[in-house]
Amino acid sequence: MESERFSNLCRPVIPVAVIVAAVLGVAGNVRAQALKDVQTSRSPLVLKAQGSFFVGGEIVEQTQGELGNLGPGGHIAVNQMYVRYMVPQAGDGNLPLVMVHGATLTGKSWETTPDGRMGWDEYFVRKGHPVYVPDQVGRGRSGFNQAIYNSVRAGSAPPTNQPEWLRFSDESVWPNFRFGTKTGVPFPDSQFPIAAVDELAKQAVPDMNRGLPTPTPTIKALSDLAGQLKGAVLMGHSQSGSFPLAAALINPDVTKGLVLVEPGTCPANYTDEQIKSLATVPLLVVFGDHRDNPTGLSTLPTWQARYEGCQALIGRLRTAGGQAEMLDPSDRRLRGNSHMIMQDKNSFQIADLILQWIDTRVSKRSARSK
Amino acid sequence: MESERFSNLCRPVIPVAVIVAAVLGVAGNVRAQALKDVQTSRSPLVLKAQGSFFVGGEIVEQTQGELGNLGPGGHIAVNQMYVRYMVPQAGDGNLPLVMVHGATLTGKSWETTPDGRMGWDEYFVRKGHPVYVPDQVGRGRSGFNQAIYNSVRAGSAPPTNQPEWLRFSDESVWPNFRFGTKTGVPFPDSQFPIAAVDELAKQAVPDMNRGLPTPTPTIKALSDLAGQLKGAVLMGHSQSGSFPLAAALINPDVTKGLVLVEPGTCPANYTDEQIKSLATVPLLVVFGDHRDNPTGLSTLPTWQARYEGCQALIGRLRTAGGQAEMLDPSDRRLRGNSHMIMQDKNSFQIADLILQWIDTRVSKRSARSK
Repeated sequence: MESERFSNLCRPVIPVAVIVAAVLGVAGNVRAQALKDVQTSRSPLVLKAQGSFFVGGEIVEQTQGELGNLGPGGHIAVNQMYVRYMVPQAGDGNLPLVMVHGATLTGKSWETTPDGRMGWDEYFVRKGHPVYVPDQVGRGRSGFNQAIYNSVRAGSAPPTNQPEWLRFSDESVWPNFRFGTKTGVPFPDSQFPIAAVDELAKQAVPDMNRGLPTPTPTIKALSDLAGQLKGAVLMGHSQSGSFPLAAALINPDVTKGLVLVEPGTCPANYTDEQIKSLATVPLLVVFGDHRDNPTGLSTLPTWQARYEGCQALIGRLRTAGGQAEMLDPSDRRLRGNSHMIMQDKNSFQIADLILQWIDTRVSKRSARSK
Repeated sequence: MESERFSNLCRPVIPVAVIVAAVLGVAGNVRAQALKDVQTSRSPLVLKAQGSFFVGGEIVEQTQGELGNLGPGGHIAVNQMYVRYMVPQAGDGNLPLVMVHGATLTGKSWETTPDGRMGWDEYFVRKGHPVYVPDQVGRGRSGFNQAIYNSVRAGSAPPTNQPEWLRFSDESVWPNFRFGTKTGVPFPDSQFPIAAVDELAKQAVPDMNRGLPTPTPTIKALSDLAGQLKGAVLMGHSQSGSFPLAAALINPDVTKGLVLVEPGTCPANYTDEQIKSLATVPLLVVFGDHRDNPTGLSTLPTWQARYEGCQALIGRLRTAGGQAEMLDPSDRRLRGNSHMIMQDKNSFQIADLILQWIDTRVSKRSARSK
């Protein structure tokens, strides 16, 4: 671990000019840096399969007006969940991983990083695990139910009936995602690739989560997906951090492991019965550094408060006989990790720690349970 | 070709019960058929690289209200174009293909088909071409500018200011995409995998194309992408069918070939100067069968009328010395192709005809021009 720390401390300092350019480049076109900065691996990626499909969804009937007046009213699909997947040629029998993104984001979070490095989607595949990346219902390629917006436009519903579309400004992202204290002032040890922060901004899409059925159909779809895969490790991030827990409560048998990456919340109100059920599934919670940094969002607690909520949940699960643990890389002298830990410069190191946990806690356990 | 015709005529007829079930299953949950029906190839897919990035985009400043009141106002990225790509390990030097989707759809159009067969994205990669699949600006993982919707909700803009979200009902899709005369009545020779039509419905997302800047930023992004790739074949479908032409007018040098798949329009108003420029790039237009079928949308012409508009454009380009041609598979005794020709049961046959055209018209020409 000393060598890790050394390389961490000695990584090149980003020239201030680069940071200033990234921060001041706030008007006009974003620098078109993406494709030329995308890196290619030295060894090919050999896939048994790749593709995409949908989980869940329902057919509803809508009027011509609700459909935007392009054609006659009729039936459409809503609340389906898009899933893209890659299955490695090697590694048969390894548990699939399902990676779910956070608020105002899509499955893109897990793909090529803002500065063009390999995403966790491919990294875990190269380590032998099939990887399934959904877009949450209501976002990205999963679509959303547009009817209320068209009804408001037509004057047949009051404007307050249409759900807000949420976006984080860069000014919110910097403190809340813990890149620094405020926009353009990164933590000296920040692991986020600050020079590419504009590329992260492009990953954001509007989020109408508050307009979805409660609970979000994504949770049932995740449980169904784990069932269709005959067992999977569910990994959530931020907004979806607690979704693996909720999916496991629907069907703990097919939920072989739970990885909560910087979860927005670890629920404190589970019944003892629910804790008993969740304790049958190994749980790992992952949090980055600088958790005491004020989020800049008056309605949201610090990430340290959420960390403590997860410690409490881990305590309850352990008392009930569960295998639950916290991964705080700063305990291992890996400092400066951000909320977007899967995109941080040391993202492979973090991934390796998760893989190590899967190997010791999940795969063996699954083998035993067969 | 006789054998092709034979296999076409002798393909199994879909049992009426399956069609009726697909048609009548219009209430409640869509049948969860997707993952189990996804097929795996016999040979692995060997990729030099895969991943995703963005092209274009701009940073704008918005108020707290426009951002949905989650946090303080500030800067966000809008109008960027998400692109996912796969580069085959074999086939170095082959021209990349960029595949753009149609209205109310996303890049998913080109991925795994509704009935679980390999999509054109992977098929063209297996044939040695790097493939780049964007989501049009305003849709899917490219996101959209949500500000006006939040302003309407807050009462600070009139409801009529917010763009309509367009969706096609299944009742529109059947005649307009030429699966049959109306919902549940497929053409006897239809090549679309009718039993999986509910899975196509899930691919649809709301389309606010009318709310985008004019022309759509997707066109400039496609031209920029072709430039970043140092030359590419641009393939559009339906709504985006004419985008390759518009992108070529921005920079014909990097647009090595144009493939218009069932284009919504072939513009009739190009100047002679524009025709001269477009005539420097090889053009292929692809149309399926049953083009005389009424679309069921009173505002839209038949696909036969669009076909004739494209024949007129081909004529003008040829007169100007261009290599422009029409691919109508029914001329080759391949009958029953639909508007979603890349998802039809004979999609590989159609792809092979396009590959043949690229080999004869584009690659050689590019080599000559070097």
